[in-house]
Amino acid sequence: MKIAFDVMGSDYGSLPTIAAVLEVIKEFKNVEICLVGDEKQINGNLQILLKNKSLSSRITILATTQVITMNDGPLAGIRMTDSSMNQAIQLVKNKKADGVLTSGSTAAYLGACHFLLGEIKGIKRPAFMPIMPTLIKDRQVVLLDVGANIENTVDELINFALMGHIYCQTIQNISRPKIGLLNIGIEESKGPEVTKATYAKLKQLTQKNEKLSFLNFHGNIEPRNVLSGDVDIIICDGYSGNIVLKSVEGMASLLFTLIKNSYKKNLWTKFLGLMSIGIFKNIKKNFDYKNTGGAQLIGINGIAFKAHGSSDKKSYYSTLKLLIRAIEQDVTNKIVKQIQ
Amino acid sequence: MKIAFDVMGSDYGSLPTIAAVLEVIKEFKNVEICLVGDEKQINGNLQILLKNKSLSSRITILATTQVITMNDGPLAGIRMTDSSMNQAIQLVKNKKADGVLTSGSTAAYLGACHFLLGEIKGIKRPAFMPIMPTLIKDRQVVLLDVGANIENTVDELINFALMGHIYCQTIQNISRPKIGLLNIGIEESKGPEVTKATYAKLKQLTQKNEKLSFLNFHGNIEPRNVLSGDVDIIICDGYSGNIVLKSVEGMASLLFTLIKNSYKKNLWTKFLGLMSIGIFKNIKKNFDYKNTGGAQLIGINGIAFKAHGSSDKKSYYSTLKLLIRAIEQDVTNKIVKQIQ
Repeated sequence: MKIAFDVMGSDYGSLPTIAAVLEVIKEFKNVEICLVGDEKQINGNLQILLKNKSLSSRITILATTQVITMNDGPLAGIRMTDSSMNQAIQLVKNKKADGVLTSGSTAAYLGACHFLLGEIKGIKRPAFMPIMPTLIKDRQVVLLDVGANIENTVDELINFALMGHIYCQTIQNISRPKIGLLNIGIEESKGPEVTKATYAKLKQLTQKNEKLSFLNFHGNIEPRNVLSGDVDIIICDGYSGNIVLKSVEGMASLLFTLIKNSYKKNLWTKFLGLMSIGIFKNIKKNFDYKNTGGAQLIGINGIAFKAHGSSDKKSYYSTLKLLIRAIEQDVTNKIVKQIQ
Repeated sequence: MKIAFDVMGSDYGSLPTIAAVLEVIKEFKNVEICLVGDEKQINGNLQILLKNKSLSSRITILATTQVITMNDGPLAGIRMTDSSMNQAIQLVKNKKADGVLTSGSTAAYLGACHFLLGEIKGIKRPAFMPIMPTLIKDRQVVLLDVGANIENTVDELINFALMGHIYCQTIQNISRPKIGLLNIGIEESKGPEVTKATYAKLKQLTQKNEKLSFLNFHGNIEPRNVLSGDVDIIICDGYSGNIVLKSVEGMASLLFTLIKNSYKKNLWTKFLGLMSIGIFKNIKKNFDYKNTGGAQLIGINGIAFKAHGSSDKKSYYSTLKLLIRAIEQDVTNKIVKQIQ
């Protein structure tokens, strides 16, 4: 199994990406990783980090000369043909890699994946799909789309349901994953027109003897219950999904900041805080998006993941693990077959 | 000053509403409150709670026979003319009260306020505007709209900015409150068409010598920074605003649940939890929507507030205080003047 990793998209240089790669190479003996980017920088960081030389046989470098920055437009991934992002995706296109990961510009990545790999036949719009923790231990929820699109049509939303279903079946071994439709109320009559129409169509198509009767449609789910573990899949347009994602991230980080500051008040609270560190570490571990990793760009021909630009080693490591699992389970081909 | 309070909308009966009323009456010597609803129930609860009989002179009862439930449609507030909600609003319409509060059906309330009080001239769509806590102590942020509308036009969003501005100037004494436009990125080119057009128009209209140059437009604000205290006002369509509100509420309640459960693990953590209660109480106090109260329905002719159906005594008390302050400061008339 071979992974193409564009290591130039990180906000903190390629060091955390390479540190994560070494962890993964150590753990997964069947994995090879091709680091795509500035050769000198990569070699320099490898020299710093690579203690066990035997691992290096499964690490290759593809030297590129261009780096896409956040200021480059959405066409940069297509036009800058010797960019690390473009070349990493090319490896998948040319069957030299089984999956690709970047943390570079989302818009450029979307453009380049669309142009170089194309969408799965029958899927009009791919979706970014993060895997998020829930209140219920070891149960996760996938949310799609969270930003590959702004608006989505009824049919696109139903395709999201289908892709989420196949993903949860394949990767999480849930036989009939529960599908929720993001809305501001649980009533069928609430929300924007497209959401109401999606509800009606999904309800009809998932009835007995109908085409999508194998889907387990749960109805609307409110934003406050996104992480409650009530459903396995939440479908929504990319704009709403991005708002949910960023709102819950913001609130979590804000509360942790408030808690931290409160424990600093005096010597006694400082002591309590010190004693409670384990508790908060544990919650953060289970509830930090860094541990659940980046998002899959689902719906394109190929397995492509995107990590945050601000990811650290742990976050890249988690995303690489998700990527490996998606390759092992052949998610994309399963979607291709189901859609046909 | 007289307040009309529809006490029949609470999920837990009228007891918490009346308990809050008694607190307020004790604290604000110039306030009279008219309790609108089932006379027998109100009298029963007053008998239980009213220890200081001298307060009763400032409490009146308006007996009504109908109660609007969540199952009644959006026209119920208009059609059910002897409902507690309709009658409470009528008191404001007939100048027998200076402001109204309910925790009943949002749709019915919107319909009845529109029909009985009407919108301020020049304002096409009113907005629900909660006052939320931020990371910065004693600094709050108002978010509008959070659910009176689904979609909003550019001009409606600009009206929201104007109403938010007047509110913050009047109630919070901020001379040039910072206005943020909710969006999924800070770049001008990001997001839905209507958001991009609002950005462009607000940017133009707030330039020197332009009509709205007195507004302090800050640009886009991402959902993760809604509660960071970076801006005083956030404008958005009702659907997005409702998603933000419910996402952050959901995440906060989820994290508090996780923390509580973690402290239950063993005797030592239980002890730590007990010792830390003060810290969490303090955070909750500063960061609980129950303390910041309900939302004002801003943009209509009259001062109308809405509390959660699940509000407790503390929450009703906070909302009543906000209502009193809005009446004292004559917010609605200030908006009327400014819009002209």
